[in-house]
Amino acid sequence: MTTKTPQTIREQCKKAYDASKLLISLNTQEKNELLLKMAQSLVDSCSIILQENENDLVEGKKKGTSDYLLDRLKLDATRVAGIADSIRTISTLDDPIGEVMSEWTRPNGLNISKIRVPLGVIGIIYEARPNVTADATSLAFKTGNSIVLRGSSSAYRSNKAIVEALKAPLIESGFNSDCIQLLEDTTREGVKYFVKMNDYISLIIPRGGASLIQSVLKEASVPTVETGVGNCHVYVDKDANLEKAKAIVFNSKTHRPSVCNSCESLVIHKEIADVFLPDTIEELQKAGVEIHGCKITQSLGKNILEASDEDWGQEYLDLTISIKVVASPEEAIEHISKYGTYHSEAIVTENTQTSDIFIKQIDASAVLVNASTRFTDGGEFGFGAEIGISTQKLHARGPMGLPEITSYKYIVKGTGQIRS
Amino acid sequence: MTTKTPQTIREQCKKAYDASKLLISLNTQEKNELLLKMAQSLVDSCSIILQENENDLVEGKKKGTSDYLLDRLKLDATRVAGIADSIRTISTLDDPIGEVMSEWTRPNGLNISKIRVPLGVIGIIYEARPNVTADATSLAFKTGNSIVLRGSSSAYRSNKAIVEALKAPLIESGFNSDCIQLLEDTTREGVKYFVKMNDYISLIIPRGGASLIQSVLKEASVPTVETGVGNCHVYVDKDANLEKAKAIVFNSKTHRPSVCNSCESLVIHKEIADVFLPDTIEELQKAGVEIHGCKITQSLGKNILEASDEDWGQEYLDLTISIKVVASPEEAIEHISKYGTYHSEAIVTENTQTSDIFIKQIDASAVLVNASTRFTDGGEFGFGAEIGISTQKLHARGPMGLPEITSYKYIVKGTGQIRS
Repeated sequence: MTTKTPQTIREQCKKAYDASKLLISLNTQEKNELLLKMAQSLVDSCSIILQENENDLVEGKKKGTSDYLLDRLKLDATRVAGIADSIRTISTLDDPIGEVMSEWTRPNGLNISKIRVPLGVIGIIYEARPNVTADATSLAFKTGNSIVLRGSSSAYRSNKAIVEALKAPLIESGFNSDCIQLLEDTTREGVKYFVKMNDYISLIIPRGGASLIQSVLKEASVPTVETGVGNCHVYVDKDANLEKAKAIVFNSKTHRPSVCNSCESLVIHKEIADVFLPDTIEELQKAGVEIHGCKITQSLGKNILEASDEDWGQEYLDLTISIKVVASPEEAIEHISKYGTYHSEAIVTENTQTSDIFIKQIDASAVLVNASTRFTDGGEFGFGAEIGISTQKLHARGPMGLPEITSYKYIVKGTGQIRS
Repeated sequence: MTTKTPQTIREQCKKAYDASKLLISLNTQEKNELLLKMAQSLVDSCSIILQENENDLVEGKKKGTSDYLLDRLKLDATRVAGIADSIRTISTLDDPIGEVMSEWTRPNGLNISKIRVPLGVIGIIYEARPNVTADATSLAFKTGNSIVLRGSSSAYRSNKAIVEALKAPLIESGFNSDCIQLLEDTTREGVKYFVKMNDYISLIIPRGGASLIQSVLKEASVPTVETGVGNCHVYVDKDANLEKAKAIVFNSKTHRPSVCNSCESLVIHKEIADVFLPDTIEELQKAGVEIHGCKITQSLGKNILEASDEDWGQEYLDLTISIKVVASPEEAIEHISKYGTYHSEAIVTENTQTSDIFIKQIDASAVLVNASTRFTDGGEFGFGAEIGISTQKLHARGPMGLPEITSYKYIVKGTGQIRS
């Protein structure tokens, strides 16, 4: 939690950059072996990590940090073991580096291939979740990237202990451990400086709440990938199977309300509203969900607050849902296009003509048909790991796995060709 | 060349954004037919375009614009016909939109596909080259993207005439022509406002000199793709075929010195310097090339200026070259890594072990073996078109063709799946 000068940030970024050149020399097997050793080192360092985590928690309590935030910060032996397991999983995934993405020969005999390469240095700015420290580091290491971690000051001791455990096997094997950098400067001013390190950093990923992401995007000159804000809708069409619809709405809303792929708003066709809503509203309310609805919705249940314009644009991240009755799929698409955040949007319908229009017209990283919004996830997509869910269109969209934190280069092989 | 308020910029960007939703409804055949009509319309409007171009030229001369810049600005009937031909070529290229990039089924039965979609709205900021107006517009249209053109004030009349010609077939066929916007505001202040239109623009591509690009990158909050600065090297290894090497150096330097993929610096192994350099230097000098060299280079030719540190980092874009003698391929790689701009780097060698090391360690969008740096080009790569050459690692690297100005989305089809 030390405050350092901008110079320190530049130095740490440069170290990461220089070390990224060395990472290129590691082959897949070497990287995997080191990852397994990192996992073991975390387990071996568990007591130190928990002690430092306890120090963070004590300080956090002193400062009046909310129980919710303290809970996210808190580690125990099971959580540390879980983090180590994630690293082991990453070691088993296919290594994207070196993949020949395409290859062709030109009429003049030039052979051109497009090869997957590391990005170089990835920066990540995140909140007080110590598991992100290990996740991001191991994903970067697997893809041959250096990482610069800018964690929250309230988790600095935990992060430092984790980073030291992860670095230990590199140091032991005589490999330069500068490819893992935890920024010592955890000030807000420091972030502004960090996101302008274009000389050294190829990509910055902000992970956290909307305000963190927006402030990073505003300040950054390093390319960023915007992650995470999800005002996700489920649209229940008049041709929906209502049993499926009820299960999908319930699951999308209540399975884990605090995450970005949970449903924040139910949009429903007026022809089935009076059949579908009364039961669904009751069931949601039984599960503790607060309902904000349009006028028709209010007439179909009890204790329903009137939804304001603000509700339609709201990412509650909580047991709250807004409900809007619409006259047609077109109106649903219009409503979702107005208030959605390009994350995940679901339709429930048995009518493929309607779902095809929805798929085509909805602009989102994932469009789901007859499935819970909760499936927009690296693990559920089968990527084995996830560094975030991109809600932008450039570089990567949706769940980002290993290939999404790589770049490519073209290799052009000739026999003396010149341009005429 | 009117100066408008920021509000006008926002309105034009919003129009482009709204129109981008309509572009999704056009199929490949419809887009191609409209492109052919745009090409014809350009030819039909040739006299108006040339007249407006003449107006721009007269104004430019009054303002004392250099002959070089006036030459880039100047159009004639042959150039206009060439621009129209480029559009016809773009109409024949494969349409990337709708391509199923990958598809798989999860154990729970969810079918996931990754589908190529338009980015939405592309912004382009460029200098006084009216051909870019038509090129960028047709590439965007082919990929279902709206375009917002921010051309130079000195080409405003030419650009406006071209844009009107391109819009005419859309208007005639009853299609909304707002997908093509030429910013009426061509002030410097306007650019600062334009590059922050995140609500409407998905990607901004700055095309022009280093200072234009740097100022855009500094101000932009919209994601950008950095294009064009190329301090490209040719390294002639001790195991080079010297005939090939001479031809490649000569071609890379003199074929078209003003473009980004031309060679700015020759790096040569000391063991062959005294055999290779005297002839090569003489031949380059005969072609009008000015030589800036290290001490050894100076001893091997006449009229060679001493190269300063500034020379090694210089993109001359002219008939000038720097020459550096090195002791090993490793030193060559180190030198190129220090001064290169991640664009195109070539090695000339018959030793595949050496070229493999060079390929692996050089960080550039294209690494060329025994071929001229001039081959880093969308046309030469077989892409059929090019919107720029990216020197960044995110999203797109190297020559950018049609797929590089698209995004993708995931379609998840289920039968009622929920997460447990």
